[in-house]
Amino acid sequence: KRVLDAGQSWLVVSLVGACIGVNAALISIITEWLSDLKNGYCYDGWWLNQQFCCWEIEYEDENGCESWHPWSDVVLAQWIIYVLFAATFSFTASHLVKNIAKYAAGSGISEIKCILAGFVMKGFLGFWTLAIKSLTLPLVIASGLSVGKEGPSVHVACCVGSVVAGLFARFSRSHGKMREILTAASAAGVAVAFGSPIGGVLFSIEEMTSNFSIKTMWRSFVCALVATFTLAAMNPYRSGKLVLFAVTYDRDWHFFEIFFFVILGVFGGLYGAFMVKFNMQWAAFRRKHLAKYPVVEAVSLATLTGVIAYSNRFLRIDMTEGMSILFRECEGGGDYDHLCQTSVQWSVAISLFVATVIRVCLVVVSYGAKVPCGIFVPSMAVGATFGRMVGILVKALWSANKESGIFAVCQPDVPCITPGTYAFLGAAAALSGVMRITVTVVVIMFELTGALTYILPTMIVLLVTKAVGDFLGTTGIADEAIRFNGYPFLDKDDHAYNMAVSRVMRTDLHTLPVTGTTVREIEETLNSTAVQGYPIVSNDGRNILMGYIGRAELRYVLDKAKKTQGTAPDMPCSFASETDDHDEMEFSGIATGPGVGMDEDISMELIETTATHEVLKLWPWVNQTPLSVSPQLPLEIVMQLFKRMGPRVILVEDHGMLHGLVTVKDVLKYTATETGEMRSRWDETQFE
Amino acid sequence: KRVLDAGQSWLVVSLVGACIGVNAALISIITEWLSDLKNGYCYDGWWLNQQFCCWEIEYEDENGCESWHPWSDVVLAQWIIYVLFAATFSFTASHLVKNIAKYAAGSGISEIKCILAGFVMKGFLGFWTLAIKSLTLPLVIASGLSVGKEGPSVHVACCVGSVVAGLFARFSRSHGKMREILTAASAAGVAVAFGSPIGGVLFSIEEMTSNFSIKTMWRSFVCALVATFTLAAMNPYRSGKLVLFAVTYDRDWHFFEIFFFVILGVFGGLYGAFMVKFNMQWAAFRRKHLAKYPVVEAVSLATLTGVIAYSNRFLRIDMTEGMSILFRECEGGGDYDHLCQTSVQWSVAISLFVATVIRVCLVVVSYGAKVPCGIFVPSMAVGATFGRMVGILVKALWSANKESGIFAVCQPDVPCITPGTYAFLGAAAALSGVMRITVTVVVIMFELTGALTYILPTMIVLLVTKAVGDFLGTTGIADEAIRFNGYPFLDKDDHAYNMAVSRVMRTDLHTLPVTGTTVREIEETLNSTAVQGYPIVSNDGRNILMGYIGRAELRYVLDKAKKTQGTAPDMPCSFASETDDHDEMEFSGIATGPGVGMDEDISMELIETTATHEVLKLWPWVNQTPLSVSPQLPLEIVMQLFKRMGPRVILVEDHGMLHGLVTVKDVLKYTATETGEMRSRWDETQFE
Repeated sequence: KRVLDAGQSWLVVSLVGACIGVNAALISIITEWLSDLKNGYCYDGWWLNQQFCCWEIEYEDENGCESWHPWSDVVLAQWIIYVLFAATFSFTASHLVKNIAKYAAGSGISEIKCILAGFVMKGFLGFWTLAIKSLTLPLVIASGLSVGKEGPSVHVACCVGSVVAGLFARFSRSHGKMREILTAASAAGVAVAFGSPIGGVLFSIEEMTSNFSIKTMWRSFVCALVATFTLAAMNPYRSGKLVLFAVTYDRDWHFFEIFFFVILGVFGGLYGAFMVKFNMQWAAFRRKHLAKYPVVEAVSLATLTGVIAYSNRFLRIDMTEGMSILFRECEGGGDYDHLCQTSVQWSVAISLFVATVIRVCLVVVSYGAKVPCGIFVPSMAVGATFGRMVGILVKALWSANKESGIFAVCQPDVPCITPGTYAFLGAAAALSGVMRITVTVVVIMFELTGALTYILPTMIVLLVTKAVGDFLGTTGIADEAIRFNGYPFLDKDDHAYNMAVSRVMRTDLHTLPVTGTTVREIEETLNSTAVQGYPIVSNDGRNILMGYIGRAELRYVLDKAKKTQGTAPDMPCSFASETDDHDEMEFSGIATGPGVGMDEDISMELIETTATHEVLKLWPWVNQTPLSVSPQLPLEIVMQLFKRMGPRVILVEDHGMLHGLVTVKDVLKYTATETGEMRSRWDETQFE
Repeated sequence: KRVLDAGQSWLVVSLVGACIGVNAALISIITEWLSDLKNGYCYDGWWLNQQFCCWEIEYEDENGCESWHPWSDVVLAQWIIYVLFAATFSFTASHLVKNIAKYAAGSGISEIKCILAGFVMKGFLGFWTLAIKSLTLPLVIASGLSVGKEGPSVHVACCVGSVVAGLFARFSRSHGKMREILTAASAAGVAVAFGSPIGGVLFSIEEMTSNFSIKTMWRSFVCALVATFTLAAMNPYRSGKLVLFAVTYDRDWHFFEIFFFVILGVFGGLYGAFMVKFNMQWAAFRRKHLAKYPVVEAVSLATLTGVIAYSNRFLRIDMTEGMSILFRECEGGGDYDHLCQTSVQWSVAISLFVATVIRVCLVVVSYGAKVPCGIFVPSMAVGATFGRMVGILVKALWSANKESGIFAVCQPDVPCITPGTYAFLGAAAALSGVMRITVTVVVIMFELTGALTYILPTMIVLLVTKAVGDFLGTTGIADEAIRFNGYPFLDKDDHAYNMAVSRVMRTDLHTLPVTGTTVREIEETLNSTAVQGYPIVSNDGRNILMGYIGRAELRYVLDKAKKTQGTAPDMPCSFASETDDHDEMEFSGIATGPGVGMDEDISMELIETTATHEVLKLWPWVNQTPLSVSPQLPLEIVMQLFKRMGPRVILVEDHGMLHGLVTVKDVLKYTATETGEMRSRWDETQFE
């Protein structure tokens, strides 16, 4: 039985991975086609994008081959058509999102973090979210908005995981098992988005899960592997490469360059802080003034982006393509659009600076619009343009002072500075600055490009970024969005010193007496309260804690009893353990023990053994040993218990007597009022 | 204050990293020199190894340049001198280990895992262990024993961490803080051993720590970065490379090759199972028969290895060098010793097979000898020889059937099979098979070689290896050694279903009454018992749990009171809280709360505020809210609490009354007797 179960888990994880891979390949293909459609169409077949249209033609200039027809030969007309297409795409996308699946908007990473931490948000990972997000993502990317598809790709992957695993009873019945699948799916989402399987696994560890286990890591590994493999086998880019922008740097770095790398790190930290601050301010503005006009907002943004971006050569091209150009070495075909010409270095540097500034502004207002949108690639693009600018300036500095100072260590006759590596490091810094993840970024950058020799510089840059971010008190944009939206999430570094749990606990409890209630009374309690579960107390008035029963279990067993045995409404109910035999007690304690999210299977298995005599016996569903603490226990430790053990509720008892109970929401409510933060919205949100 | 503390932590982590880097560089340099000393000496200076001796000479044949003098020109004499040197080196190493620091023997990874799980082993991370292990490691490697320096490198790094951080009161006083440093140091140990900083971080996550946190990961990142950077700056190989065996594979892999990759994965799994089983059997034999002759054993092994290995060209050369040869592509200088000649392919394949078999046997008997020895690189070497053999066979198969079957997809005029990649994948499989780590191996292999295009094949191979290992029920060799030695370590997948904690708990408790004892009585209790701490109970005979005090705290405060105030032996002691004021209570509860290994600082800070009147007040040192559970709680959940919350002891109370207490050792003792395993030795071991 156990072997079979384990086998099924692996099967489901692999199936989820395969579906994620197929879905990602389809999204890629459609995105490419739509992007090219803005510029022209293929004479040989409207369904071909520019690359495939010109597949067998050797010669290729900027406007493609003969079969590829631009919409117009006049630049102004090209521009207008480009903007019109962008507006149409964004209109379609935002319209679909608004009317069919509002959860498809945004990146979804914040919400998934909450779901993985144990909350439930109905419909967020459902089929319609999946369908609409998969469909609108290519439209949004093709519309040219300054948003990425990597964040939404994680959400899409989790939807696939939820839908596919939901077909299996083992997973649909157990939130715990489902969360394992979702964690693996989030790894696969990053893996297919970047072609970086190990980066995906690390992302799931560093960003997504709150409690790490080797088993989950291994599932993520398998899911990411299968997804990436499927994507590689489908080969959507027909390049045979998973790597988006493979570069090989021939030259190694010099120790003196670390000084300039530090500048890039500082930029990453500042960019992160700036982005988080102003994006959140813009989000507040959006909530206040734009909430009713999501379609208008998206269309205006796309039009604006199209109009502005067309004027700058680094903004006009696709962000991914732009990065692959900026990352290249100057030697060997890297001189795109005179990027490497010393004669125009100043104009190129200015152009890059303008691109950086405009892109930052566009990202601030675009990320969070009511369409699928991620911030990974836009951040990297910002970092890459800034980094390349720094690289060009350093190269100019070197050209002017070849013999002197720090540049004396360079060999005289070969190029000393590789501006492409600065772009690479800048991209890493910006990504790390805005997401506040480090190890993941190193691995992703390094799987993206294969630039192995630059692993130490990358790490140094991210160290500086992290230090700057910590100094400025920035948190990751996903965590900031959680706070902004008031989602119930216990942050990794939420602290509450000098506080006993008794201050926080809820004392207005809905308890059930261990004996002496009837089915009708329980039904009434169920209907009149909205809590997740009920502590069972002794009915001698001393309030001795006897156990805990979840709302879902109680509902289930009552319904079943009514349906199968036609239980009368005034039948007495008993939560008391049947037997005084110790072994039996223990067994039942185990059967229903896991209130701590461990192996929820066990409790499910016993549900079939209903016991019905003249008294409705509910004890097999009672968790007779709920996690309980004493009132003096520091809140700090209760928070640790929540984070590491993952229970939904912790009971507070003093010498056997029930004093109160505490949930994550109670803790958050307390810390919010205590620290004066505006963090009281979770009662309105959809999280359960 | 907090900022200062955080700053000090970073400083110490960086300092530890730098020391690890310097130490690793010195070990590398000495190892190289000693290894070459077996073959000859440098005329220009005895302190130069072959590489530096011949540094400026262009022409280099197998016997080096002119300045490099082999000990003899006769092959037989060369052989004898080689063996004599090997014997001398191993004699010196084992003698030093035996007489000065016996903890320097072995790899040390198992013990460090236990230490990181919360136990203490005096002297294991001390200065002498560090000095002797650093000194003998080069000797052992140079002696040619089939052992690696990567495992011991982790131990050495942890010793450095312990010694350096021990200079700071903040770390020497707190086991929790020290463990964070040790985790970071273990990451740096792997980082410098392989030149793989991110691999080191993952190693610390996947293999070493039992409870993962982002903060620890980030420290590991910094420590590994600083250590690798220091090593790179010292540049011991003078190659400017961190990467031991950088390869670039020009050709991509084909889908049909997956079939052969699976063979490599199966080999890895089988090798792991074989190695774990027989190495443990040999360890049992060693304990029984060879325990008294560690020096004789080491010298015999070195002699035997020298005699046997000299006859096979793949065994004779250094394992690292051998791997770098086996990993190479045939084109571009990879034809070492006719490895790529089709004419001699069969003899090469047989030679590789023989090398594989002999190496496996040598590793079985060598790993665990009473000298510093690791199993990482030997396993990789085994996998590389086997993999290269498979590669050569596949290549031969392709040569014979170029047009037919699965090989039809190959382009006709270019080589289709790259045997070097098979060696690479074989090495990964064998390493993963014996250590049972996966993500870490992918990253290490990939940082070692930069073979980015092979990331999917590597993952597939490791998936197969993992599946085979799981099927055979293999556990990692480090965990197996923990079990063999009976160390107190709660395994990640130790299970105990259907069992309440009351069955396991210890009931013969040494409690202290809350009031009514004297200093003398407490002293007597301290002297007559050896437990880690004492529950405080009410003195009304009802055994109500009031708190818990650690042995160390009790000892400290008594000694201090005697020294500073000259407390009389019959002075009464009180553990009762002074005040009934609730706020005060809470505060003290927090001050001494963390029995759960969280932030041990807090409790230390209060220690200075001794209160002495006519009664010795001990309450500030009492943890008034120790982690306690009810007797019916399933053992499973208690084990989860131990693993995730990391307390040293959990008290068992029922409705306020103390029933017993349980420690990790109790749990292990129980599961051991229950499952019938021979696992009862930890009372004899040095762990506290």
